Amino acid sequence: MSTSTQYVYRFGNGTAEGTKEMKALLGGKGANLAEMSSIGLPVPPGFTITTETCNYYSQHNHQWPDGLEAQVQDGVRHLEQALGRTLGDPNNPLLVSVRSGAAQSMPGMMDTVLNLGLNDDVVEGLAQETGNERFAYDAYRRFIDMFSDVVMGVDHHYFEEAIDQMKREKGVENDLDLDADDLKHLVNRYKAIYRNKTQHMFPSDPQEQLRFAINAVFGSWDSARAIKYRRINKITGLLGTAVNVQAMVYGNMGETSGTGVCFTRNPATGERELYGEFLVNAQGEDVVAGIRTPEPIAQMADEFPQPYRELVEVTNRLEKHYQNMQDIEFTVQDGTLFILQTRNGKRTGRAAIKTAVDMVREGLTDKKTAVRDLVEPGHLDQLLHPGFKDEAAYKKDVMATGLPASPGAAVGQVVFTADEAEAWKADGKKVILVRIETSPEDVGGMDAAEGILTSRGGMTSHAAVVARGWGKPCVAGCGDIIINYRTKSFTNGRISVNEGDWISINGSTGEVILGQQELVAAELSDDFATFMEWADEFRPIGVRTNADTPEDAEKAIAFGAEGIGLCRTEHMFFEGNRILAVREMILAASERDRRAALAKLLPYQKEDFRGIFQAMAGYPVTIRLLDPPLHEFLPHDQEGQQEMADLMGVSIDKVKAKVAELDEFNPMLGHRGCRLGITYPEITEMQARAILEAAVELKAEGVEVLPEIMVPLIGTMEEFVDQKKVIQKTADKVFAEKNDRIDFLIGTMIEIPRAALTADDVAREAEFFSFGTNDLTQMTFGYSRDDAGKFLPIYVERKILPRDPFQVLDQRGVGQLVQIGTDRGRQTNPDLKVGICGEHGGEPTSVAFCYKVGMNYVSCSPFRVPIARLAAAQARLVAEQKEALDAVEV
Amino acid sequence: MSTSTQYVYRFGNGTAEGTKEMKALLGGKGANLAEMSSIGLPVPPGFTITTETCNYYSQHNHQWPDGLEAQVQDGVRHLEQALGRTLGDPNNPLLVSVRSGAAQSMPGMMDTVLNLGLNDDVVEGLAQETGNERFAYDAYRRFIDMFSDVVMGVDHHYFEEAIDQMKREKGVENDLDLDADDLKHLVNRYKAIYRNKTQHMFPSDPQEQLRFAINAVFGSWDSARAIKYRRINKITGLLGTAVNVQAMVYGNMGETSGTGVCFTRNPATGERELYGEFLVNAQGEDVVAGIRTPEPIAQMADEFPQPYRELVEVTNRLEKHYQNMQDIEFTVQDGTLFILQTRNGKRTGRAAIKTAVDMVREGLTDKKTAVRDLVEPGHLDQLLHPGFKDEAAYKKDVMATGLPASPGAAVGQVVFTADEAEAWKADGKKVILVRIETSPEDVGGMDAAEGILTSRGGMTSHAAVVARGWGKPCVAGCGDIIINYRTKSFTNGRISVNEGDWISINGSTGEVILGQQELVAAELSDDFATFMEWADEFRPIGVRTNADTPEDAEKAIAFGAEGIGLCRTEHMFFEGNRILAVREMILAASERDRRAALAKLLPYQKEDFRGIFQAMAGYPVTIRLLDPPLHEFLPHDQEGQQEMADLMGVSIDKVKAKVAELDEFNPMLGHRGCRLGITYPEITEMQARAILEAAVELKAEGVEVLPEIMVPLIGTMEEFVDQKKVIQKTADKVFAEKNDRIDFLIGTMIEIPRAALTADDVAREAEFFSFGTNDLTQMTFGYSRDDAGKFLPIYVERKILPRDPFQVLDQRGVGQLVQIGTDRGRQTNPDLKVGICGEHGGEPTSVAFCYKVGMNYVSCSPFRVPIARLAAAQARLVAEQKEALDAVEV
Repeated sequence: MSTSTQYVYRFGNGTAEGTKEMKALLGGKGANLAEMSSIGLPVPPGFTITTETCNYYSQHNHQWPDGLEAQVQDGVRHLEQALGRTLGDPNNPLLVSVRSGAAQSMPGMMDTVLNLGLNDDVVEGLAQETGNERFAYDAYRRFIDMFSDVVMGVDHHYFEEAIDQMKREKGVENDLDLDADDLKHLVNRYKAIYRNKTQHMFPSDPQEQLRFAINAVFGSWDSARAIKYRRINKITGLLGTAVNVQAMVYGNMGETSGTGVCFTRNPATGERELYGEFLVNAQGEDVVAGIRTPEPIAQMADEFPQPYRELVEVTNRLEKHYQNMQDIEFTVQDGTLFILQTRNGKRTGRAAIKTAVDMVREGLTDKKTAVRDLVEPGHLDQLLHPGFKDEAAYKKDVMATGLPASPGAAVGQVVFTADEAEAWKADGKKVILVRIETSPEDVGGMDAAEGILTSRGGMTSHAAVVARGWGKPCVAGCGDIIINYRTKSFTNGRISVNEGDWISINGSTGEVILGQQELVAAELSDDFATFMEWADEFRPIGVRTNADTPEDAEKAIAFGAEGIGLCRTEHMFFEGNRILAVREMILAASERDRRAALAKLLPYQKEDFRGIFQAMAGYPVTIRLLDPPLHEFLPHDQEGQQEMADLMGVSIDKVKAKVAELDEFNPMLGHRGCRLGITYPEITEMQARAILEAAVELKAEGVEVLPEIMVPLIGTMEEFVDQKKVIQKTADKVFAEKNDRIDFLIGTMIEIPRAALTADDVAREAEFFSFGTNDLTQMTFGYSRDDAGKFLPIYVERKILPRDPFQVLDQRGVGQLVQIGTDRGRQTNPDLKVGICGEHGGEPTSVAFCYKVGMNYVSCSPFRVPIARLAAAQARLVAEQKEALDAVEV
Repeated sequence: MSTSTQYVYRFGNGTAEGTKEMKALLGGKGANLAEMSSIGLPVPPGFTITTETCNYYSQHNHQWPDGLEAQVQDGVRHLEQALGRTLGDPNNPLLVSVRSGAAQSMPGMMDTVLNLGLNDDVVEGLAQETGNERFAYDAYRRFIDMFSDVVMGVDHHYFEEAIDQMKREKGVENDLDLDADDLKHLVNRYKAIYRNKTQHMFPSDPQEQLRFAINAVFGSWDSARAIKYRRINKITGLLGTAVNVQAMVYGNMGETSGTGVCFTRNPATGERELYGEFLVNAQGEDVVAGIRTPEPIAQMADEFPQPYRELVEVTNRLEKHYQNMQDIEFTVQDGTLFILQTRNGKRTGRAAIKTAVDMVREGLTDKKTAVRDLVEPGHLDQLLHPGFKDEAAYKKDVMATGLPASPGAAVGQVVFTADEAEAWKADGKKVILVRIETSPEDVGGMDAAEGILTSRGGMTSHAAVVARGWGKPCVAGCGDIIINYRTKSFTNGRISVNEGDWISINGSTGEVILGQQELVAAELSDDFATFMEWADEFRPIGVRTNADTPEDAEKAIAFGAEGIGLCRTEHMFFEGNRILAVREMILAASERDRRAALAKLLPYQKEDFRGIFQAMAGYPVTIRLLDPPLHEFLPHDQEGQQEMADLMGVSIDKVKAKVAELDEFNPMLGHRGCRLGITYPEITEMQARAILEAAVELKAEGVEVLPEIMVPLIGTMEEFVDQKKVIQKTADKVFAEKNDRIDFLIGTMIEIPRAALTADDVAREAEFFSFGTNDLTQMTFGYSRDDAGKFLPIYVERKILPRDPFQVLDQRGVGQLVQIGTDRGRQTNPDLKVGICGEHGGEPTSVAFCYKVGMNYVSCSPFRVPIARLAAAQARLVAEQKEALDAVEV
């Protein structure tokens, strides 16, 4: 490095020496400030000291390279000229902020120092200029606090103690109750703390303050925290951090100043209009604090015509430049407009869709960018479910919050049993079914209810899974309430809700609300259809649905599903009189009796599959063989057991004995999945026969049927082979009997860690894999999803886990098994079809992971199909964008 | 290949053209026959056709290379000369066997054909020579059956049908009831079947028979089964199979012939003496069938003095050559001794130890070989536990068989509750505790009992684990019996056993036996100590023990343990009055109340650790923090709950409510392990304090203490860090209070798949890993060990699993995670100490795997320590032997 090296890059006044491509040299923040400035945004001027300078400092025993001093002085002069102010001049003071900023965002480095440039003289000048002594001294004491803490490492709590002490002395509660004189005293005390802790006087020379701050930023690069952060996150190859010095601007310098925020489009509707608020002679925090009521942004046209015209022009330029709706913070200082910040604006789902479609039509962006950047998958959720008319209005009536288990809003009268739900519904009432937890026996009542509330169970509990499948609002695992079935009431400890009382639940937020809140229906606009078509143009993998009934299948097709990825057969066993035959099978003492009971089930199952195949004509349908432990089909209460005994003509003792026999310590890890089919092959035979008879018969009727028979819960290749043989033998028989055949696949769920680890063996025999990431997550973490409510929320709160792994696929752990399973499976079977059918198949980051892993499709509940479609398209477009950027950098 | 290539290698008459090193060319069997012959063993002469020949055949459209025909003819002539017999000559017929044999053992290739050379003329000659027409025709019909099946693929069952038909016609039950004439008829029928199925006459020319058989062996190399076997077992690089043609010899050719078996040492005691049996004018199968009573081998000295002298000489040579006690089959044909087979002799544990020590002392072998080859780890089990005096005698009284959960024999009167066991024991009675399953509440009664019998639970159920820890016999999961607590009896459906009845159990076999069987005590000879010392000389890794009490620790040290690898703290919570404090803690409504209850436990825990540290002075002690779910500490029956309520002065409803609150769907995957310590850090604090206070105090008393604190059940690095912080903070406090400090380690169990997959993260923070392969197996397979009894036995029986993965570590699946965890852990922490503390730590093949993976130690229950010591030494010696052999081959 020589004296001619450029250490300092200036920005402001509509130009900049840097560009957004210079992140490596200027850091992320510096490059963006340069970018905003160079496209003509009136950002407060400033300069950036390069990362190379930091590197020099760190390698040369904390010395500045020759020439840096002069360049920093030039930089300060640039600011002084741009604003007509001077650092350290009490009559017209320039104040600046100092911030760190490396090429990658990196916690652990130095924070912001604001208001640098204040000292005992300058503060007086500021007081005079603003006509607000309190403001000036408040800024001063904050500056001392921040400087001491951030630059000199004097702990913030000393200053907190001093201000608390002052408030006690004055007998006041709030900082705001301290007046200018109090703050003047406080400044002295703060300076004493500084002296005491650092053994030095507080630096009164703004130039010295600036040098200290710059050195502190440089030094923070080598702090233990920053080094550790880089090590853990494997960040290497960076030179150091840049330092950004930027002029402070104030909207509270009088009647020609002001501050505001605005959106380039209406964030609620997407209408193209400048939307926002403005406040004369105020700072940004005044707008937020709500002490004064801001004016609508349109008013500004009258009061600040020139700055308003500039703002309109700036906002148009910004939208075009960023190809996105912008949320802008600005300040007018003495008639001059400054843009403090611009970022992509938050918006509702409705606004997101309209903005995306409009911006393409207006030529402001293209389809690819619109699909990639302008709508978040979560936005679609809002459009697919009913919501509350006014979410803000009901907050005071929220009596408990549980898990947002199935999105949407519902209103109804409380009932506590599935039977009552059905009865009340039959009487024309709207009900919310409230249960400690639900079981397959409750599905009738769940169907009858507007929404479901449970006090136990997680995001993948029975209630949650079934409700999502139906798109019915559900709040699950609401530990805030205690349900008492005997008294038919529940309470949060203060308020009790009784049977028949009206409540509202918000399945998107988990809120339980007293009374009847007003609903707005879901609406799918033409824009929605247009946008989803665009998404499909870029979507790289298939999207199927998890559906157990023809109705669900039809709904999912309407949402764009291209097949069924998971058809659970066990739900079919509960309908109507079938449960009797199921229970007969379970009670059977011999294989012969079991076969007799299964023979009764066969026609029902076949009819089920006919319905689903018809609804999915031309699309593949993956059918999972019986999975849950048999005890789930037996009643566990005295009443139910007596009823069962009576209906079947056996003693209740016999029923009780069977329930006891089937009882398991850990049913999740017990006698279920293919373990049932292996010990009772006749069950697999019956199911395979039902599937294949239905398929062959429909073929004769001209329906295209593509069945994929899926063996659940295998952990070894041998288990799969055992079941495959049973299925193939049944197929041979059925085809011989029907004198016709169809093509079908036999594959397996990968949901046991061992199956993923030995996928190369399994794939020699299996034609497809479907990752069951619900169970895979349970076993990889050792978490029972039904019991994890006791510690998972604490884990997430204390950041032991970044998020609930049942909601968002744990890529670091579970994801390794998904990757291993996919790779090894394809090693021995390159044609292996791979998909996912766990709840994660509809979660955007998990969908992106599935695409990256190389899956052929994802499968999710019907209402998540549009989300998965968009997420898959975005995963590809984001990856392509990253590749393109990486190519530029190389 | 040219005409001068040697395709055929001869052996016999004390010489051989091949050696045991020529496996690649002659196959395993051929090389061994050559070896036996070349060390002077009188093996029946024969020749081996090389694997290269097979390769030629397979590559040249099933043609023989030029010269092979002539060499085979020469080989046959060699046999004829050696035995003075001629192939196909009715007057003095040579009969041969033909067998396949590749370089590696390989099921799926051709089986043996015996008696080749018979035809309608030769059979008559054989009848005359042996004076036994029935024998001759039986040999003939067996030859036709075998030749047709093995060489021509005519299914064996056709011949079975024919003989069954013949027996029906004659009205007899057994093959032996058919006379020579019947067999003559049968030969004709067999030939008809051959004709019918192959469309050819049965080949009567022995030369043709031989060519057919050789080609069949060549062809079987390319059979679908053999190809599949090689693919699955990844066997590559082999040329083909060799063909072994060997002369048949007969011990039933008259009074100068005979047959016998003998051991070179007494297989029951290890005494050096020729031990075996001999039968004049008989075949090997006659000795086995037990129709005639054989003479002791010593008799042979009188009756066959010359062959006996030869036999003694041969056996000495064999023991020296194979450096192992031999089990030898021999035949004397017309005064000439032939050795048919020699192999290492099966022996009792006592004999194994004595043989090993004696053979080293006699200079027949060295220590290394003795340790590697002469004692199996399973042998030690016999020596460490009492046994029954006569296992054969009681077989008729076996009334049920369960899992051999903890080895050894026990006799006692049946009781059904832990309380009764303690009471009866106090009255001086010996009892067997019979429970459906045991729980921690039963440990007092388990301790009082001679042995334990349960009808539920697997090899790692509570009863099994505790019993093994104590070396107490246990039969677990005995599904053959149904226990009725109400009537105080159990039954196998035919016989009922009541309270007070005497039974015996064999924990080494799983047998439950009626009545009082006679016991023999365990005895550890001086030879045992000598041998174990030798084993330790070669042992490459440490052996620790799993022990929860000072008594167990002392026992384990006597067995050679070098530390504790797993000290479970939960068992300590049940002793005496502590359980009250534990329950108080569980019922506590606030952290303050919980801390108060924990403070009561602290002195007890500290005393526990003092005792264990003292017993293990100078050795490391790994202490696992509290692991089981809290509900395990609460009574689950009405009576116990009432008692608890009374003792604690609370209502029974409160107790019931807490039991209900703690109830879990899948406790195995629930709120346990470090999840407890994270939600209730005060438990971890108390335990860490007890450990460290005990350690610091003992240090002051001059005891060397090396504690290793182990956090259970972590799945993420963050969980470990959370608990590590609590432990470190507690340590800082304790050390400050005591004004002294000790070195200790903080590490973790790896028992959750995710922990293994993210071991590189975890090892950045952990100082040691201990693989908890019990839970790791449960989660990797998705098997609850307490519930797997419903399908695991069926899986093993149907070969879906090769063996119970809770007994023998599943290297293919679970082993991958162990390997991944070890490798990744060492990647980020090269000093990481790695061990295993699951039940597998005392299972020989699993110990070998742990050595291969690179662990520092294994840990197992005290009674398995000697087994682990030997298994570890053998793992290394076998690996070194393999390396040496591989080096020779290269």
